[in-house]
Amino acid sequence: MKVLVAGVGGMGTRFALCLAHTGNDVAVADGWQDRLSYLKKDGLKAKFNGQEVQVRVPAYAQTKVPTDQHFDVVLFLCKSMQLDQMVQDVLPAFDDDTFALCLMNGVGHEKTLAKYVDPDRVLLGNTMWTAQMTRPDHVFLGDDGSCELGSPNGNPDAQEMAKQVVEVFSQAGLKAHYLDNPRYSVFRKGCVNGTLNTLCTLLECNLTEYSQTPGAHDMVVKIVDEFAAVGEKEGVNLDRQEVVDHVEASYNVIGDHYPSMYQDLIKNNRVTEIDYMNGYVSTHGHKYGLATPYCDLLTDLVHAKESVRHANRS
Amino acid sequence: MKVLVAGVGGMGTRFALCLAHTGNDVAVADGWQDRLSYLKKDGLKAKFNGQEVQVRVPAYAQTKVPTDQHFDVVLFLCKSMQLDQMVQDVLPAFDDDTFALCLMNGVGHEKTLAKYVDPDRVLLGNTMWTAQMTRPDHVFLGDDGSCELGSPNGNPDAQEMAKQVVEVFSQAGLKAHYLDNPRYSVFRKGCVNGTLNTLCTLLECNLTEYSQTPGAHDMVVKIVDEFAAVGEKEGVNLDRQEVVDHVEASYNVIGDHYPSMYQDLIKNNRVTEIDYMNGYVSTHGHKYGLATPYCDLLTDLVHAKESVRHANRS
Repeated sequence: MKVLVAGVGGMGTRFALCLAHTGNDVAVADGWQDRLSYLKKDGLKAKFNGQEVQVRVPAYAQTKVPTDQHFDVVLFLCKSMQLDQMVQDVLPAFDDDTFALCLMNGVGHEKTLAKYVDPDRVLLGNTMWTAQMTRPDHVFLGDDGSCELGSPNGNPDAQEMAKQVVEVFSQAGLKAHYLDNPRYSVFRKGCVNGTLNTLCTLLECNLTEYSQTPGAHDMVVKIVDEFAAVGEKEGVNLDRQEVVDHVEASYNVIGDHYPSMYQDLIKNNRVTEIDYMNGYVSTHGHKYGLATPYCDLLTDLVHAKESVRHANRS
Repeated sequence: MKVLVAGVGGMGTRFALCLAHTGNDVAVADGWQDRLSYLKKDGLKAKFNGQEVQVRVPAYAQTKVPTDQHFDVVLFLCKSMQLDQMVQDVLPAFDDDTFALCLMNGVGHEKTLAKYVDPDRVLLGNTMWTAQMTRPDHVFLGDDGSCELGSPNGNPDAQEMAKQVVEVFSQAGLKAHYLDNPRYSVFRKGCVNGTLNTLCTLLECNLTEYSQTPGAHDMVVKIVDEFAAVGEKEGVNLDRQEVVDHVEASYNVIGDHYPSMYQDLIKNNRVTEIDYMNGYVSTHGHKYGLATPYCDLLTDLVHAKESVRHANRS
């Protein structure tokens, strides 16, 4: 399969590496100049399950993607706030039969893609893999994971393509699963991020520490309720109890984990993806006439914390 | 005037010192053993407007107050969570005509006093003075301030006594003002604490830094709304716009100030008085059937931060 990975931070590197290793035709695109010069010079470099690996692939500035490559899939793995610009920039790489696939954290990305790409050619999903950029030229890839994807609007051709992608990704070791209803899955993952990412960032703690706070359960329940109310307005009917259980199950599995938002803001002093998590629920709740006070306040608090810490926007 | 100061941290020391300096008959009571032995040995010691001062006054363990002293006023200036026990402990020092006066931060303290003391003998108010314990034997007293008090239930004898206290306190340099409706004033001050104390503690910032965050105004408005809604159920009808303006006016006056709750939790790693600020609105909102999501979440978040930091309860 011919794949352009748009956004080659930690996660983009994982997917590009795995796909290239198993014989797929992979190229990468990014907007970060430092990163790009290393990619052009040395290719993808990572510590992958304990071993240093290096794979050379074509690397393009996102504003200078090739127009003659007939990619089967453009896989988006940039930061949420970069997605709109990224889609516009890499659009010249699309043929009529190229699919856009988004596996990024955050709710509502299929709407951003559909602004520029035929919704029948949009695939959507989640990844539970981890990845960490250690330097502009190096990525750390440990832990086990999986990913899942499908067609958000149920188009039969897109569903067929999603199944092919699942097969190719699984052959590449990415443990992919097919989803009939990827938007359900995205909202469900959004609940994990909108609770644990957000709260662990505000409180500067890991999952176990959060789980031991006296109001931990109540906060999770209230936040999941707001995600579910907004989801219902968008045709996604979350099983609230199952989602709360799912969020809380992670305490035992990855209790010592500091979520990615914590790493962005507390460790690396970068702005967060809050607008695509609780912020999505807040703005869309208002649009639908729903009260979403927990997500409103949490969004304001995370932005306030970014402001107080003078977090980097780049 | 014969006054027992119950709780001799920073603020209690300020009031005891000023009253003793101007010839009042002052004694102090506290439950902190370390503090008490210094008080017994050296008296009250403070850096007071740039000068080191020292005044000897009778100092008692709060469980061993004298029963034969005929105090005119017992002035409560302990931490909110210590008040209930403190009232019970110093009750033997009360005569039939002793008044209880509470100038502590927090909403609802008059209810705690009225559990043990005739409500007609309860006085209530606020202090805008600052005070800081530097060591168990020493207090730093700078800045200008004022205080205000009255009878929460409008009893004429209590109002008369409140006016006498105002005069004595003002002679002592404490810039006291008489209040017809001290509960209004307590709720209004509660709004300052429930916004700026709470938010600056969660965000670990001073007032100016908070004021520059993008959601600063919205958060203040929402929190004041919840205080006002609960106040209305208790016969206190806040002027919401005036209160919001009052909160925001402090950005320019004491912008570099880190509120007392910040000092408690972030600087001294002690548990906070959140249950007597947003927590009061949260628990009483539920009691009155009001939605108070901002105060609910903020109370949970501050308790969570106490938990994550293993804040000291003593």
